[in-house]
Amino acid sequence: MMKTEMQREHILHTLQIALAAQEYPGLQKFLAQIHVADAAAFIESLPPKEAALVFRLLPKTEGAQVFAELEFDAQQELLHAFTDRELQEVVEELYLDDAVDLLEELPAGVVARVLRLSDADRRAELNHYLRFPKDSAGSIMTGEFMMLKKHWTVGQAIKRIRETGQDKETIYTCYVTDAFRVLEGVVSVRTLLLSPDTAYVGECMDTHIIQAQTHDDQEVIVPLFREYDLLSLPIVDTEKRMVGIITVDDALDVSDYEVTEDFQRMALTEPSARPYLKTPVHVHAKNRVSWLLILMLSGMVNGRILEGYEHAFLAIPVLVSFIPMLTDTGGNAGSQSSTIIIRGMSMGEIVPGDIGRIIWSELRIALLVGLVMAAVNYARIYFFVQDGDPMIALTVSLALLFVILLSKVVGGTLPILAKKAGVDPAIMAAPLITTVVDALGLILYFSIAVRLLQI
Amino acid sequence: MMKTEMQREHILHTLQIALAAQEYPGLQKFLAQIHVADAAAFIESLPPKEAALVFRLLPKTEGAQVFAELEFDAQQELLHAFTDRELQEVVEELYLDDAVDLLEELPAGVVARVLRLSDADRRAELNHYLRFPKDSAGSIMTGEFMMLKKHWTVGQAIKRIRETGQDKETIYTCYVTDAFRVLEGVVSVRTLLLSPDTAYVGECMDTHIIQAQTHDDQEVIVPLFREYDLLSLPIVDTEKRMVGIITVDDALDVSDYEVTEDFQRMALTEPSARPYLKTPVHVHAKNRVSWLLILMLSGMVNGRILEGYEHAFLAIPVLVSFIPMLTDTGGNAGSQSSTIIIRGMSMGEIVPGDIGRIIWSELRIALLVGLVMAAVNYARIYFFVQDGDPMIALTVSLALLFVILLSKVVGGTLPILAKKAGVDPAIMAAPLITTVVDALGLILYFSIAVRLLQI
Repeated sequence: MMKTEMQREHILHTLQIALAAQEYPGLQKFLAQIHVADAAAFIESLPPKEAALVFRLLPKTEGAQVFAELEFDAQQELLHAFTDRELQEVVEELYLDDAVDLLEELPAGVVARVLRLSDADRRAELNHYLRFPKDSAGSIMTGEFMMLKKHWTVGQAIKRIRETGQDKETIYTCYVTDAFRVLEGVVSVRTLLLSPDTAYVGECMDTHIIQAQTHDDQEVIVPLFREYDLLSLPIVDTEKRMVGIITVDDALDVSDYEVTEDFQRMALTEPSARPYLKTPVHVHAKNRVSWLLILMLSGMVNGRILEGYEHAFLAIPVLVSFIPMLTDTGGNAGSQSSTIIIRGMSMGEIVPGDIGRIIWSELRIALLVGLVMAAVNYARIYFFVQDGDPMIALTVSLALLFVILLSKVVGGTLPILAKKAGVDPAIMAAPLITTVVDALGLILYFSIAVRLLQI
Repeated sequence: MMKTEMQREHILHTLQIALAAQEYPGLQKFLAQIHVADAAAFIESLPPKEAALVFRLLPKTEGAQVFAELEFDAQQELLHAFTDRELQEVVEELYLDDAVDLLEELPAGVVARVLRLSDADRRAELNHYLRFPKDSAGSIMTGEFMMLKKHWTVGQAIKRIRETGQDKETIYTCYVTDAFRVLEGVVSVRTLLLSPDTAYVGECMDTHIIQAQTHDDQEVIVPLFREYDLLSLPIVDTEKRMVGIITVDDALDVSDYEVTEDFQRMALTEPSARPYLKTPVHVHAKNRVSWLLILMLSGMVNGRILEGYEHAFLAIPVLVSFIPMLTDTGGNAGSQSSTIIIRGMSMGEIVPGDIGRIIWSELRIALLVGLVMAAVNYARIYFFVQDGDPMIALTVSLALLFVILLSKVVGGTLPILAKKAGVDPAIMAAPLITTVVDALGLILYFSIAVRLLQI
C-alpha cells in the first residue's frame, strides 16, 4: 500500500472511533489539527447526516477549505443539509476560484440562492467570474492576489504583506501594478526577504512577465507552469490590466484533467470528469456506444472488400487464417506511432511544422520494423503452417511489410493533420486509424495474393 | 499558435539578431534579463560553438540554472566545450538535485572528472545522492532546505531566513527539526509572516507532517503533492531524520514522466524519456518491434482457430466478411474499459479492492452497449447485405453481443489483476487484451454459426 493511504487510513480510523463514541470535543480538536484533505476524505466516507454533523464541528475558516476539497457528490449532499446561514458562510469563506467552480456546477436555483445570500461585493465578484467561458483562464483564476507598488521600499512591502496577506490565495509571488492596475513587474517574497529593507520594489522586480489573458483556454496555462517553474501566473484582461492569478495547484489539476481527457479520447469514449465508480452505468454506456457504432458501420467497407475477394479465399482457404494477424499488426503498429506523436504534441516536443521530419522518420522506422516482422513471419509460415508453401509465405510477408509501412505513416501523420485542422489529435487516434489501415491492408493483401498465387 | 511560443519566438528573434550582429554587450544584458528557460531554448537552437560562446556571456549563477534547463544532448555538447574550471563552476552552482541528475546520465569518465574537481564537501554530498536507486525519492531530492528550531521566535526565524535563504532551493516551507535532525513540524513562510514577531515557531508549526522516505519510489510522491497541494515535500531516512526535500516543479516533471511512460506502455513501446525527434530511428524501431513480434506470434492461435473452421466458411463464405468487424469491435470495446481503469488507478480513484464492483459495472455497461450494437448490426445485415438472411444476421449479432461482454470484462479486470501481481497495469492494456478476446470471440462466432446455420 502506498504511504499516503497508510497515513490517511490511520487518521480516518482514529476519527471513526471518536465519532462512534460520540466523543465530540476530542473529535473537534483532532479535526482542527489534521490536513483539510484528510478531513474531506473522512466526511466523504460518512452517510449524509453524520457528514453534516462532522462538518459543523470544523472551525469556520477550515470548513470552507474542507468543502472545496470534497467530491462534487459530497458537496451536493452537504448543501442540501445546510441552513441558509451555513450556505452563506461557506461561500463567503471559500477562495473565489473555488466558489466559482462550485457555482458553475450547481443547479440554477441553488446558484440564485447563493447569490441572494452573498453580500453585494461578493455577489459582484461571483457574477464577474461566472461570465467567463468554461475552461477559460478567467473561469479558474482567483482575484485574491498580493499587489505592490514599485515606489514602496522592501520593508514597506513586507509590512504590507504581513498585514493583508491573510485573504490572499498566495503571497509568494507579488504583482507590481501602476495606477491603472496595469502589470509592471513581478517579485517573489523570496526576493523581497533576501533584499535589504531599504531597497525599492521597483529595483527588485522582474519586468519580463510571463502572463496569460482571461479568455485563453486553460490548456495553454499548464505549459507555462511547466516551462517556467511558476508558483502562480498573472491573468490580464484585453487592456492589460491585472485581474487575477492562477496558482500551481490549480494548474496541476488542469494538467491531470487534460491528460485524462486525452486518455478518454484515445480510448474512444466521451470525455467525462467524474470518477469511474461515481458514474452511473447508463452514462458509461452512453459515453462508449457512439464511437463503437460509428466504427462498426465504417467497418462495413472491410466486409465489402472481403466479399469482393471471395473467389480468392475459396481457391486458397488458408489465406483467411492470416486476416486477423494482418489487421491486428496494422492496428498495433499504427497505435504505437499515433500515441507517441499525440503525447509528444501535448508535451510541446512536436509541433505541426515537424510533419515532414515525422513522415521521414516513420518511414525508416517502419522499414526496419517491417523487414524484421516479415522475415520472422516468412520463417514461421514456411516451417510451421500446414500447406505452408513458399509463395503463400511470401504473399503474407509482403502484405505485412506494406501494412506496417502504411499504418506507421498514417498513424504518425493523422494526429498532426488533425491538430492543423483544429481538431483534438486524440480523436484521430488508434481505432480510427485501424479502420483506414484495415481496408487498405486487405486490398493490398488480396491483390498481392491474386498476382503471386495466380488465382 | 500558443501564447508561450509567441512570446518566446519574439525573444529568440531578438537574441538571434544581436548574436548575428556580434553585439555582445547588448546580448549579455538581454540574456541577464530573460527567463532562464528562454535562454536555454536559445542555446539549444545554436550550433555547439556558438552555444558555448553564448553560455559564457551568462552571469555565473544564472549559467548553472540555464544549464539545468538544457536538453541532455545540448548539455553534453557544452560539457565537451568546457574547460575544467568551467565544468567545476557549473557543478558548484547547480542545485544539488540538478547536479545529481546530470551525473547520473554522464559517462563514468566525466563523472570522475567532475567529482575530482569538486571540493570535498560537494563531493561528499554528490556521492551521497548518487548511491540512491534511480527514480527513488532520494535520487531526486535536494539537501538545500530551510531548517528552523521550535524555540526560536517568529522574528528570529524570519531574520534567519533573510540571512541564509539565498542557497536554499525553496524557503516557502521551512522544516522544524530537533537536535538529531528529526522532523518535528513544518511551517510556511506565509504563516510566519502572518504571525506576530514574538510568537514561537513551535506555536505556529503544523505537527501533522506529510513526508516520504528516501527509498520510496518517485511515483508515490506525485499523489502527495496533488492531494495536499504541497509546494515541497520533506524526505526522511529510516531513522526519521530529515535529509532533503522535493519541490513542486520536480514533482510536476515526475508526473509528466510517469504519464508519458503510461502512454508508451499502452502503445506497446519500450518506455523512453528522450523526445521523439532526438531519438535515432534504429532506437525507435528497437523499442517497437519486440511487442509487435510477440503479438504476431501469439496471433498464430487465431490462425489455427480459423483453419479449424474452414468447413464452416467454405459452406457459407459471407461469414468471413464479418471477421474484421467482430475482432475490431472487441478490440475497441476492450480498450475503452482498460484505458479508463488504468487512468483511474493512476489517479488513485480506483484501487485493486474495487475489482468486484468493476466487474459488476462492466457487465451491465457491456450488456447495454452490446444490445444496442447487436440491434443495429442485425438491422444493417438484414437490410443491406446481399444474401443477408435473418439467421446469418442473428448469428453475427449474438456473436457481437458476447464479444462485447467478454472484452469489457477482460479489459476492466486484467489491469487490476496486473497491479495486484505487481506488474505495471499499462502493460496489460488494449493490444494484449485484443489477442485474448480475438481468439475467444472467433471460437464463439463459429460455434454459434455451426449450430444456428446447421453447417
